[in-house]
Amino acid sequence: MSDPKRMIVVGGVAAGMSAASQAKRRKKDLEVIVFERGPWVSYGACGMPYNIQDPQRPIEDLVVISAESFRKERGIDVRIHHAVKAVDVNKRSVTVSGKNGEETHAYDRLVMATGCRPVHPPFSGMEKDGVFLLHTLVQAEKIKTYLKDRPIRRAVVLGGGHIGLEMADVLTERGLSVTVIKRSEDVPSGYPKEISKLVRSELERHGVEFRAGARVLGFVGDGRVEAVHTDAGDLPADLVLVATGVTPEVGLARDAGIRIGESGAIAVDDRMRTSAPGVFAAGDCADAYHILLRRGVFIPRGTTANKQGRIAGANAVGADERFRGVMGTSVTKVFDLAVGHTGLMDSEAAGAGFDPVAVVISARTRAHAYPGSRDICVRLVFERRTGRILGAQMAGGEGVAKRLDVLVAALHAGWTVEDLASLDLSYAPPFAPVWDPILVCANVARKKVSG
Amino acid sequence: MSDPKRMIVVGGVAAGMSAASQAKRRKKDLEVIVFERGPWVSYGACGMPYNIQDPQRPIEDLVVISAESFRKERGIDVRIHHAVKAVDVNKRSVTVSGKNGEETHAYDRLVMATGCRPVHPPFSGMEKDGVFLLHTLVQAEKIKTYLKDRPIRRAVVLGGGHIGLEMADVLTERGLSVTVIKRSEDVPSGYPKEISKLVRSELERHGVEFRAGARVLGFVGDGRVEAVHTDAGDLPADLVLVATGVTPEVGLARDAGIRIGESGAIAVDDRMRTSAPGVFAAGDCADAYHILLRRGVFIPRGTTANKQGRIAGANAVGADERFRGVMGTSVTKVFDLAVGHTGLMDSEAAGAGFDPVAVVISARTRAHAYPGSRDICVRLVFERRTGRILGAQMAGGEGVAKRLDVLVAALHAGWTVEDLASLDLSYAPPFAPVWDPILVCANVARKKVSG
Repeated sequence: MSDPKRMIVVGGVAAGMSAASQAKRRKKDLEVIVFERGPWVSYGACGMPYNIQDPQRPIEDLVVISAESFRKERGIDVRIHHAVKAVDVNKRSVTVSGKNGEETHAYDRLVMATGCRPVHPPFSGMEKDGVFLLHTLVQAEKIKTYLKDRPIRRAVVLGGGHIGLEMADVLTERGLSVTVIKRSEDVPSGYPKEISKLVRSELERHGVEFRAGARVLGFVGDGRVEAVHTDAGDLPADLVLVATGVTPEVGLARDAGIRIGESGAIAVDDRMRTSAPGVFAAGDCADAYHILLRRGVFIPRGTTANKQGRIAGANAVGADERFRGVMGTSVTKVFDLAVGHTGLMDSEAAGAGFDPVAVVISARTRAHAYPGSRDICVRLVFERRTGRILGAQMAGGEGVAKRLDVLVAALHAGWTVEDLASLDLSYAPPFAPVWDPILVCANVARKKVSG
Repeated sequence: MSDPKRMIVVGGVAAGMSAASQAKRRKKDLEVIVFERGPWVSYGACGMPYNIQDPQRPIEDLVVISAESFRKERGIDVRIHHAVKAVDVNKRSVTVSGKNGEETHAYDRLVMATGCRPVHPPFSGMEKDGVFLLHTLVQAEKIKTYLKDRPIRRAVVLGGGHIGLEMADVLTERGLSVTVIKRSEDVPSGYPKEISKLVRSELERHGVEFRAGARVLGFVGDGRVEAVHTDAGDLPADLVLVATGVTPEVGLARDAGIRIGESGAIAVDDRMRTSAPGVFAAGDCADAYHILLRRGVFIPRGTTANKQGRIAGANAVGADERFRGVMGTSVTKVFDLAVGHTGLMDSEAAGAGFDPVAVVISARTRAHAYPGSRDICVRLVFERRTGRILGAQMAGGEGVAKRLDVLVAALHAGWTVEDLASLDLSYAPPFAPVWDPILVCANVARKKVSG
């Protein structure tokens, strides 16, 4: 490969700015141009619900490094309000629409970091005032302004995924009466019943109404939304959040003839290379290799975007870094409960050809006589014959996220429940019982291994 | 091996009661007798400082299962106030001193769970009122009574290990003015300077005076302690806690001709068998195999005692369970700071023949714009050429214990810093930054690997 002179990055959020920074850090004389269609780059999208929670905080708080700082301090040519319209992988150029109209720029290396976008369900009335998606900082700001300008009392959240749950929490904290509508009872979507039950009772305990089964037909109101129209009747609503899922933003790549993977995201190898020479992809728009499933998946995460972006940027300037893959790890705060999982759910495991079995335990988070202990539920999915761990789900009042990370490590290591039970985990009364809930669950699981 | 009819357990705290319960659960017709010289069995010794903190809580709160419950519900013959005086491994019998005088009891299986005892330093005046050790529930109760009965204002803690630090915290919370005396500046003992500094400033922030370098000569006072006499002058004290270390309680075993390991604790194999047929040892009195050092060590921990006790009990009745070993994991609360480590410190690693190098980072515990974030310091020790992780030390305001556990897993797996950096750890703004402090440290460490 010839020595690259110019790298172009399409998209300036997590993956894009990580790639730009990494490439520029490694090769000082590289010209790096980032085209971002929105007004902000490098913001923490996962923090949007919590910013909305606090009326006093400006939305810009979520920007980690401004476009200006990237230009001045890192020498990266960040161009906001610039939308890339086309990529020509043969001519190695992109066509961009910005304040000066359309321009074409040549590249030696290209990083696609176009992210994902919310699924826009075909409900009638999506255009009404007060019906929102929450995906970009622009949308977050619109919600915040809407909450500020009007007397809003009732919100309806469509979807019981992470954004839906976080927003149910946040809107309740802002004093709204909230209803969550979802087709099925599992919450977060896909979670087993033992965990879903805890999440539903946490919602209930905080006054959130959870409605499973109702089918949304559209939104009612004269210009401004007044109700959600469902097959089980109308639900009054001053604000509606549609959070029914996301899909990778791959239009540009597809139009350019870059290969799309089975997951629907841009196909990449473990060096973050796409099918087109000199073109890398990273973040939500790109495949993430799932270590257990042994194939590319679409599981959008800020963590993955940062890791992949950094690797794409490094490899674009000649490094040989490898992305090892994901475990599908996820964690969400729902009021005073943390709920999360890593690895495979039972059905995913079965679908991948494993013979899974699961155990679930309830325990306390601190030593038996130490004050402030909370409940925690740990569920392990493992292979019946070998005891190999396939996944874990947890919900509890404290220590869930980092206990999940121990399971993440166990999955990366390919351990059995027997291996897990042997770990010399930390212990002191304020932080854990002498048998950590993880070990309690592993010990129960050991007895179920049939091999 | 013939079918065992009677198992005797010497010592009724964590390891002893775990062994008794496990053996009885697996073999219902086994006669299990536990001799405990004190008045309580099955108590959470690690919780003693926190019980002392709360004047309203009875000391019995720390008892997990009473002697009575063991007898009635589990069919285990627990005899408190019974001190085993001798073991005859040829005759397979123990001589016990109890309320009926001396008795001799035959055994088929014996579990030594005699624990450890505090080092009794040769200070003059150790017998004075107000000078305490904290090792048993009896001693904890004495401290509690002493605090209740008298106007106590000044406490001096000798030793900067875990018990010393926890008690400095607890006595301060009870309104005392506390001084910690230690020979060297490292705190907890053996910790690197970056962590020690944080601990010392946390002590300071809460009004605890930390005095390094003074040599204690004895205790001054007329019957009751009034001051600690040191080579740097006298320190007024109404209460003195001597917490200068512990040593395994192996007198009985040694007298019986059972082999003692190089660590000073009873030598055991990975099945918890001692050198004498039919005799097992578990808990603080027994060797714990250190996975990295590949030899038996004396690192007393409640977690290890529970694991080893369970294995000893199972194997005593014919199972073949294996104790995999320890990593030396430890964590302590010092006011609002958690401090802990796992694996090897630099000097231990060098002593074991590794060529260690360390990196240290400071980070925040939550996403950059999420409220309530705390500082955390992560330090990794790893092999210079290969990047293999050898140990970790952490101190911080939240999430330390369970982040340490991720490192515990990494050590068990034998990972490099490169492996660690690739983990798909959980992320949501309330629980971690998008680059978890562990990953930040691993990324810094990667650059230092020379191989």
